[in-house]
Formats: sequence, structure tokens, C-alpha cells
Amino acid sequence: MVPPDLLETLAAILGASNLHVAADALLAYGTDALKRGHPAEAVALPADTSQVARVVAACAAHRVPFVPRGAGTGYTGGAVPLHGGVVISLERMNRILEIDEANLLAVVEPHVVTGDLQAAVEKVGLFYPPDPASLHMSVIGGNVAECAGGPRAFKYGTTKRYVLGLEAVLPTGEVIETGGKVVKNVVGYDLTHLLVGSEGTLAIITKIILRLVPKPPVQATLRASFTSVEAAVEAVSEIIRRRVVPAALELIDGESLEAVAQNLQVRSLAPEGTAAILLLEVDGSAAAVAEDALRVEEACTAAGTTEILRARDDAERMELWRVRREISLSLKMITPLKFNHDVVVPKGRIPELFALVGRIRDAYRLRIPCFGHAGDGNIHVNIMVMPDDADEIERAHEAEKVLFEGVVALEGSISGEHGIGFSKAPFLPIELSPDEIALMRRVKQAFDPLELLNPGKIFPP
Amino acid sequence: MVPPDLLETLAAILGASNLHVAADALLAYGTDALKRGHPAEAVALPADTSQVARVVAACAAHRVPFVPRGAGTGYTGGAVPLHGGVVISLERMNRILEIDEANLLAVVEPHVVTGDLQAAVEKVGLFYPPDPASLHMSVIGGNVAECAGGPRAFKYGTTKRYVLGLEAVLPTGEVIETGGKVVKNVVGYDLTHLLVGSEGTLAIITKIILRLVPKPPVQATLRASFTSVEAAVEAVSEIIRRRVVPAALELIDGESLEAVAQNLQVRSLAPEGTAAILLLEVDGSAAAVAEDALRVEEACTAAGTTEILRARDDAERMELWRVRREISLSLKMITPLKFNHDVVVPKGRIPELFALVGRIRDAYRLRIPCFGHAGDGNIHVNIMVMPDDADEIERAHEAEKVLFEGVVALEGSISGEHGIGFSKAPFLPIELSPDEIALMRRVKQAFDPLELLNPGKIFPP
Repeated sequence: MVPPDLLETLAAILGASNLHVAADALLAYGTDALKRGHPAEAVALPADTSQVARVVAACAAHRVPFVPRGAGTGYTGGAVPLHGGVVISLERMNRILEIDEANLLAVVEPHVVTGDLQAAVEKVGLFYPPDPASLHMSVIGGNVAECAGGPRAFKYGTTKRYVLGLEAVLPTGEVIETGGKVVKNVVGYDLTHLLVGSEGTLAIITKIILRLVPKPPVQATLRASFTSVEAAVEAVSEIIRRRVVPAALELIDGESLEAVAQNLQVRSLAPEGTAAILLLEVDGSAAAVAEDALRVEEACTAAGTTEILRARDDAERMELWRVRREISLSLKMITPLKFNHDVVVPKGRIPELFALVGRIRDAYRLRIPCFGHAGDGNIHVNIMVMPDDADEIERAHEAEKVLFEGVVALEGSISGEHGIGFSKAPFLPIELSPDEIALMRRVKQAFDPLELLNPGKIFPP
Repeated sequence: MVPPDLLETLAAILGASNLHVAADALLAYGTDALKRGHPAEAVALPADTSQVARVVAACAAHRVPFVPRGAGTGYTGGAVPLHGGVVISLERMNRILEIDEANLLAVVEPHVVTGDLQAAVEKVGLFYPPDPASLHMSVIGGNVAECAGGPRAFKYGTTKRYVLGLEAVLPTGEVIETGGKVVKNVVGYDLTHLLVGSEGTLAIITKIILRLVPKPPVQATLRASFTSVEAAVEAVSEIIRRRVVPAALELIDGESLEAVAQNLQVRSLAPEGTAAILLLEVDGSAAAVAEDALRVEEACTAAGTTEILRARDDAERMELWRVRREISLSLKMITPLKFNHDVVVPKGRIPELFALVGRIRDAYRLRIPCFGHAGDGNIHVNIMVMPDDADEIERAHEAEKVLFEGVVALEGSISGEHGIGFSKAPFLPIELSPDEIALMRRVKQAFDPLELLNPGKIFPP
């Protein structure tokens, strides 16, 4: 319960118009892309770091929990105020503070939309590679909290690789800075990368220093079709064997492809008999791109591709990418509910992952279209269910557990991108040992001794 | 004091021949490249992770401190048993366990010499980029504990970027695994990157999973001479402005150059009047290298280089690199003692760093040759002193503090590569706030509640 005098204090800190207590706001700020929300008791909209710190200190003094919130596009409930309390939305802290061309870095507030930052730095010939599917909605602060990935991670790495420094408010109210504007820093513990991916459970990030790289001048996009997932994965291996590092290496299975074809109302998106396609992008200098594209084509041919297309211009490039961009929406059109899991295995074991999914599909009678980042071994496994079919939902939940156990047995991980939030928290012990979980709990305690920041997340209930 | 019954227990775990208690061994294992040692009370040589865990548990039961040790090449005393106790040398755990070409990774025990791993993976066309100057002596475990850098960090990043997973023994004796064989993993807190660079104060690393990349097929090495440090730094800016990312971008100042010339007994290593040289390397496909080398030459010319050489073959390449490799030894020949500091500033501020060093040189009457990784803004500032000149040593210590304060004022960091150990621990508060240090102490507590692992390091006494 948020006591009235805390509300008064918050209003005094923020101004009354920046504190929401109306029921519709409490609901809206209580849910995220997981669609399993819990209403907030108050929503604070701080304007700057000092206001964040004061809001946190006030909540802590009242022993009221608080939950930081970015754009609410997360898939595992990370921004949901599961135990009520105050949602601290960073939406007013949305400025790009600095694009420093000489030092190849940007300084941003947390609520800068990722795609907007990319556009801004590309204007001066620089590049911020992480490209989660949500990039036109999600914000850098959320990307950092979740360590967002995306297709380009195979070549460029995930968000983690680009975070040089942070300013953050501890759950006890102190403002700390970690890392900084230098690309190397070994002074004390690397709290920067501990905070990246900590899902808003250790501190509230209020400023981010990001490393940038030169924008690759040329891209080439290719699409290769295969009659089996195994052949597509063999092409990935052939590409790696040829020591090419594509900027993107996306795999889409036949079931996902069929969903997109239905949704776009085209008869087919690839030659008849296609069970998997690879979408490939290489980037760099013109000479390097020409060379790499050729080797990618050779690799796909060696693996028995039935058709390979190379985009001749930007319009064709966008057309090839379209099928990838339409998947999520298309799947939703077929079945309103999906349990989408972002499991990851060593890439050489992707065929075993698909074999596992095949067994689960049969055993639990479920539709499970798969697609994702083949270069990283990070495959989105979508268990599709009808919301009114209780039996199917139960089968889906059983299937989830079998999937996670199977992935860990393949030396993989139950999440490569979306994090744990509260939706995957019960499954944490499948991947981590009791000693490892106990250690993480002690780390959490080191940051949040009162357990007020984003409670109910990551750790099994 | 190590009690006799602990020694008996250790001998039982390790076999008597793998427990050293002779005075010469206790001295040898009590020092590292800092040359300010403290004798160990016993030296344990475990053969595997289970023995490490049992040694740790035995020490913990007796409340005796213990210190992990790699090759002892660190510059800040990280491997020194400052409070006595048991040194745990990982020297017998020196196997490359796996080079996995399909998944682009290697699994190694901690005591694999970095250069040996590089040679092994290069045989199959792969590449492990981090290249600390010590690479033919230092070992991966130590590189991970210190987050080693090197010339190639500008393009490829430091050790951190290549560590996918770890096995480690906690100071309380439990064995944990962090990360794994997948390149993406967001399950729980990123303990992997918290352990990287933690200087052996949080856990003892017993196994390392490293990411590899394809070996760049072609390299080109260039050397450009300048009449001022400012002009050399301007060339770095021009290179960045042209969006070229050299694999190495090393700066050597006139005083360092003069030391090498003296030591090698050549009259001069660069045109008369040279105050700084840049050593540059570009790598990639043949076409990309040709293009980048040209742009680097243009950039250096634009900044007023007085001479630019491009190596025509491997022999010339080695010759150009020779001056860089000879610096440390040459400096030692002139003055037996150096306080070598690896400060780092945003690269655009390198001229201000050199101006600061110039002021310190004059004010404290010291010789301070500088060289280092200009692309990263990471400059090795060597304060040279005669060991028998007490007044000079005192001036040098005063100069150190001024240097560190100045670097932090330039938005830099007091260490980019060597870490804090105990030699820089008193200076930590120059860079970190009391709140930040207190938080790091709580993190240390979360791992090491009895404060037995490598005590006296990182935190100010």
C-alpha cells in the first residue's frame, strides 16, 4: 500500500501533474508486452536523475516497492509492478545529450528510442548496431536493462558490447557512476556490465554512455531457400567454415513462412517444398561485401540451396527483409496467444534443437513455428495456443518445461534476449544451480538490502 | 599463520610434492612483475577444479587467506600474498581442452599461455585477438582476472569481449559456472563479466570458455613520423574522421624512441626532429586492407607526417614493430626503476594528457617517456627513477598523484589495463566516490563473506 503521505511527498518532488494515480494509468503502466500485468499504485514521471533519486529515497523510507519502466516492450514482465508500489517511468528523460564524433560515443538519457538514436548517429556516418525487433518503440534504457539483441548481434554483439558507462540510482537512493567515456577501464569491479541485463532489479539507469562504430558503407542482402532445416543449418556451418561473418544470419522455418504467406495473402514466399529460408546480410566496404556475398552464395550452394536471391537495390533489400519483419504479426493473426521463447544453443547444435522442437510438436500436439538468429544459435520458439482452449494451454505449459530442459541439455540457455522477468522465473533452476542462484541473491542484496526494487523478478518464487 | 594441521590437510589433498613450503619457493611465489612482494606461507599446486575447491574449503575452515596466481606478470601486485597465507598457483591446470571450429570457441584451463592459445587457434584459421605485451609469458586465467588489453583492443576490444563463460571456485568453496558456450545469455546476473577484471578477489577461475573470430587473412603495417605529439594525435583524429578502424594504433613519444635507439645502438629510429611516431596496422581481406592503408596514409599526410613507411613483407613488418617491442626493456636499461602507469582518457583528449605530463615533467624534474594505445586513449606513462635517489622517488610519488587527479579531471581513468592490485589501491578514491566504493565492498562481501580471498587488493587500506 502506498500511504497518502508518500503520495504527497512524491507530488512535491515531481509536481502533481507528473504523478499519476488514476485507475486507467495504473493499469496501463502495470503491463508490458507479456500481457500479464498487475496494476501500479502510483506512477512517477521524474524529469531528471535527482528526481529519480528523491523518489527512490521516499519510497525506501516508506518501505514501498518501486519498479523502473522504459517503453514497456519487454516479453517477460520485467516492467510489471508485480507487488504493486510505485512505477517510475523514465519517459521524460528522453534526450540525446551528446554525439561525440571524435571519441566515437554517445551520451543519452534512458528513454531515447533506439531507432531514433540510430538515425541520429548514422547522419554523421556512425553506427549503433544493436537492432531488437522493437527498435522503433523500445528505448535504450530498456535495451540496456534487458541486454537487447537482434539480427546484427552475430557480427556486432548485443547491447552489452556498446555500453561504456552508466549513471544509476541505487535502491537506497545514492547516485553512482560506472565506467565512463573511455573504452578501457579496469578500476574496481565492472558494475557497468553487471547492470546491463539485470532487468531493473539492481539499480535504475538514468544515463548511458554508448560506444559507436563507423557505419559500414555498403550492405548486401541475400535469401536462400532450403528443403529442410538441416540443410539451412548446414549452410550456416559452411559460411562459418569459409570464415565469413555476416551482419545478419536469420533462419525462418516453413511453418513461420506459411503464416506470413497467409497473412500477406500471397500463395508462397519461396519455391515449393521450402522448409526453411536463410536471410543473410553482409556489410563493409564495397570490395569486402562483394567478396563476402560471393562466399555466402558458394556456401549456400554447397549446402544444397534450391534458390538464392541477392537484392539488387534498396527496394529489393526491404522486400527480402519484409518476410522477417512480418512474422510476429502474422503469427498473432493465426493464433492470438503465443508463448514465445528465445532459447539459445551453440550454433552447431541448432539441428538438435529443431529435432527437439519436432518431438515436442508431436508429443504435445502443438503448432510451434520457429525463426531467429541462426548465427547466434538463438531461435525464437513460438508455442501457439488458442486462449479459450484450456487443454492446449496446459499442454503448452508442459511443453515449455520440456523445451527448457532440452535446451540446457544441449549446452544452451533458456533466454538469449528476453530475460527472465517473472514469466520465466520458475524455470531459473533448470539452468542455474542452487549455489549460483544463492550467489545472485547475495549480489541482489548488496544492491538492494530492503528488497524494494522490482521485487518478484528473476528469482524463483 | 598457516597452522600445521592445515598444511597436513593440503598435503593430503594435493600430494606432498604439490605443496611447497621451502623458503625460496615462498619468496618466488610471493612476488610478481610489480617487484614488491610478500612471502607466501605455503604454495598449493592443485591439478584440477575439485582440488582447488578442497584447498579453498580447507583454508576457509582455518580462516587462513589464500591468493590465486597465474604467471605472475601483473604490474600492480595482484598475485602478491600481501597478508601471507596460501598461494594457489594454477600452473598445473594448463590444458587447451577444446577448440570448437563449428561454434567458434575454445575451452581452456587457466594456465594456458596466451600466445600458445593464439598459435593453436590460428592453425585452424581462427583468431584470439587480445594481445597484452606479456602474451608469451602471461596466461589466460591472469588475462581474464585482469581484463588484459593490448594494441589490438582498438579494433577488437579487450579480453572481456571474448569471455563467454567461466567455471570458478567461490571463496566459500562452491564451484559455480557462469555464462556458457552460447554467445547470448541473459539468464540471471552477468557474473561472467563481473569476474573478468576482478583481479582474483571474487573467485578463483578454473575454466574459461572463449569466443574466437575468423583470422583476418591480410595485415598491413605502417609507421608515420611526426614533429610533435599533437600532430600524431591529429593523425589519429583524421583516421577516425575517415571511419577507418585500424587493428592497432600505437603512439610512441620522442623520449621512448630515444631510449630504444640508445639501447639498440642505432643513431636514430626516425627522421631527425621526430617527437612522436604512430605504428599502425590494418587487417581484413586484401581489398579492404589496401583501401584502409591508403586512407591511413592520407590521414597521416593531412596531419603533416614527415615520413610514412609501409612494410612490404613480413620481415619489414617485424622490423617496424621491433621498436614497440623493445621499449620496456630499453627503458629498464636507462633507469632500473619505473613507475609505469596505464592511464586512459577519451582519445580526443590525448593532447591534454601529454600537456599534463609535460607540466609534471617540469614541475617534478622527472623523466617520463610515454607510449601506448592511442586509439583507446590508453597511454603508458613511465616515471623513471634511480632506486638510490630518495628525493627523486619522493618526487615521483607526488607526481603520480597529480597525474591520476589530472587524468580523472580529463574524464579518464587511472587504469586501462593493469588494474589496481595493492599498488594503486590508495588512489581508488580519486576516481570512485565513497558510495561507489561502498557498493563494491558489498559486492566483495557477497562473494567472500570471510574476506579470505586475496585480501588487501583494490580497496584503499
